[in-house]
Amino acid sequence: MATIAAAAAARCNSPARRQLLTRRCLPFSVSFSSATPPAAAAGFGWADALRVAGDGGRGDESDLSGYFRKVDTCNRGMDKRGEFVKFLVEDQVVGYIHKGFVEHLRDFHDVFTIVSGNNGSNTLENVSLRSSLRTPEERTNAIGDVIKNLGELIPGIRNELYPVTSSYGMPVYFSLERAAAPYFGIKAYGVHMNGYVEKDGQKFLWIGKRSDVKQTYPGMLDHLVAGGLPYGISCKENIIKECEEEAGIPRSVSTNATSVGAISYMDIEGFRYKRDVLFCYDLKLLADFVPNNEDGEVDSFRLIPVPHAANIIRRTEFFKPNCNLVIIDFLFRHGYINPDSRGYLNLLQSLRSGDCS
Amino acid sequence: MATIAAAAAARCNSPARRQLLTRRCLPFSVSFSSATPPAAAAGFGWADALRVAGDGGRGDESDLSGYFRKVDTCNRGMDKRGEFVKFLVEDQVVGYIHKGFVEHLRDFHDVFTIVSGNNGSNTLENVSLRSSLRTPEERTNAIGDVIKNLGELIPGIRNELYPVTSSYGMPVYFSLERAAAPYFGIKAYGVHMNGYVEKDGQKFLWIGKRSDVKQTYPGMLDHLVAGGLPYGISCKENIIKECEEEAGIPRSVSTNATSVGAISYMDIEGFRYKRDVLFCYDLKLLADFVPNNEDGEVDSFRLIPVPHAANIIRRTEFFKPNCNLVIIDFLFRHGYINPDSRGYLNLLQSLRSGDCS
Repeated sequence: MATIAAAAAARCNSPARRQLLTRRCLPFSVSFSSATPPAAAAGFGWADALRVAGDGGRGDESDLSGYFRKVDTCNRGMDKRGEFVKFLVEDQVVGYIHKGFVEHLRDFHDVFTIVSGNNGSNTLENVSLRSSLRTPEERTNAIGDVIKNLGELIPGIRNELYPVTSSYGMPVYFSLERAAAPYFGIKAYGVHMNGYVEKDGQKFLWIGKRSDVKQTYPGMLDHLVAGGLPYGISCKENIIKECEEEAGIPRSVSTNATSVGAISYMDIEGFRYKRDVLFCYDLKLLADFVPNNEDGEVDSFRLIPVPHAANIIRRTEFFKPNCNLVIIDFLFRHGYINPDSRGYLNLLQSLRSGDCS
Repeated sequence: MATIAAAAAARCNSPARRQLLTRRCLPFSVSFSSATPPAAAAGFGWADALRVAGDGGRGDESDLSGYFRKVDTCNRGMDKRGEFVKFLVEDQVVGYIHKGFVEHLRDFHDVFTIVSGNNGSNTLENVSLRSSLRTPEERTNAIGDVIKNLGELIPGIRNELYPVTSSYGMPVYFSLERAAAPYFGIKAYGVHMNGYVEKDGQKFLWIGKRSDVKQTYPGMLDHLVAGGLPYGISCKENIIKECEEEAGIPRSVSTNATSVGAISYMDIEGFRYKRDVLFCYDLKLLADFVPNNEDGEVDSFRLIPVPHAANIIRRTEFFKPNCNLVIIDFLFRHGYINPDSRGYLNLLQSLRSGDCS
């Protein structure tokens, strides 16, 4: 916990991107990068989380600064946008690639066209997919081969394909390995579901703790159900599938999952430009429901009063970073953050800081 | 109805601002300006509205084009932003004033400083409030006198004061007559509440029909409760007050009204630049609740299944324009508009087309 606190202090001393509100360093703040998975498990247990959650004496509920910090964690590096160039397919912008990463693509003449300034300068203008690659299949295979060739440059290969489009619902130009998405700056879509229970007029959220051996964000707190949106499946079918795999929720129940909006963020770190859009769902569950993880990705679940979950978000970095945003959206929609709090509208807007299209 | 249909046809033939979706002219589309109140009552009755609402056979529910049209109705004239100059108080931008309207302010030397280009040009740069007006009271009185002097140039005086700030929650520089707000382009804040009932797993919305003699938007459909946010009252207290006046909802019930977010729009028409932010509330009511208007502003109420209310929004212009946006937000949050509909993310984003701060 000492190392964690030191990291938190370092983070809080760094220049704040958004100056709207005074940010305070709180004793439980811990720091994990949103893009770089921590090497080991998060290093906290349920006892730590529940102690922060239930301590109602420390915070002014109308102080939104803890929430702003979580939005910032998912939206870094906007001053480095100039280091990226457009990635085009059929003259449509589908992503952004770091100029340094482009150097690794130069050898693949059959796959990419790399355009420099046409005024005789060497300025890198853009990268496009060769027009000789005509079908989605040809493109998917060609880029798939490139990614295999790049080896360790793109770590954490998931063998899961994301659709590449200019915006959601538009034609899919090709499909791309999930781990490679931020290196090509394509928009990645996901589905995130808050499962909640209402007892005696109080709402409770089901919170998962990720497995300590999970590849990304091991040991961190998570929604009841969440997942990337792979190629060829609708949001609704994806939620139903993830409900079954991640929480043992049968289709007869998960079909009641309600779409409630979307959040988005943009995060630049090194060669990576994450442009994520998360479709948000709520599922109201019966009081006797008990989740049961079936794919080994979740260690355990707890049912936590919503104000307690809010405390964990404000005071710690225990949650997987993007989950914070989806729960903050829940807090807005269910009246736990109210307009008489200073910064209400700015925080609301900030939940869609990324290109939400 | 013939005149209304002709106006609708004319509107549909005009160039569309947003080209994302193909817009269709539907037979029930009628056209009212969002800024100019119709001279007479809206000219439709509940029977007309309920016929459109209940006709389930005509529409593809995933066709969002009817909703996009309603967002457009509240966000016009963005190509005319160049006709406005900044309105400053203490060097902060609090609004925008049309260059033509500025000419009417030139005589009030003790109140406004009108700055033209300092490079010798006659270009109008900005308008600011004289620094000799130091206190909010002095400013409020001085501008109040100007507005009285302008007479019919600002019609529909309400004798209701709006706070003028750079953004919500920031210091209030002075207060301004509600009817004058768009002429000075200040941001105006309101509270809008959807009252709903749940019966057998189905949701119903309470819809009001405005009085035929109401000054603005007579005879049009409305929320259960809505109102501008005057100076010196919190959002929550305002909702409770409006609940009592507009629907006879006692404080013991209205205190359960839940803040759920906000929408915003920007609309330019002639000298007027509306920059509105509406704080949205939901109130779940018991099945036996019956609203009772106490201030004479509502003619009658009906309880309508949510999908029927959605049909009225998509197919007609029966609702007061900004109410459409608040109900569309309700449809998003309650799962009636889903991510597998084409245009989902664009429509969601468009609900905050204005400066939401």
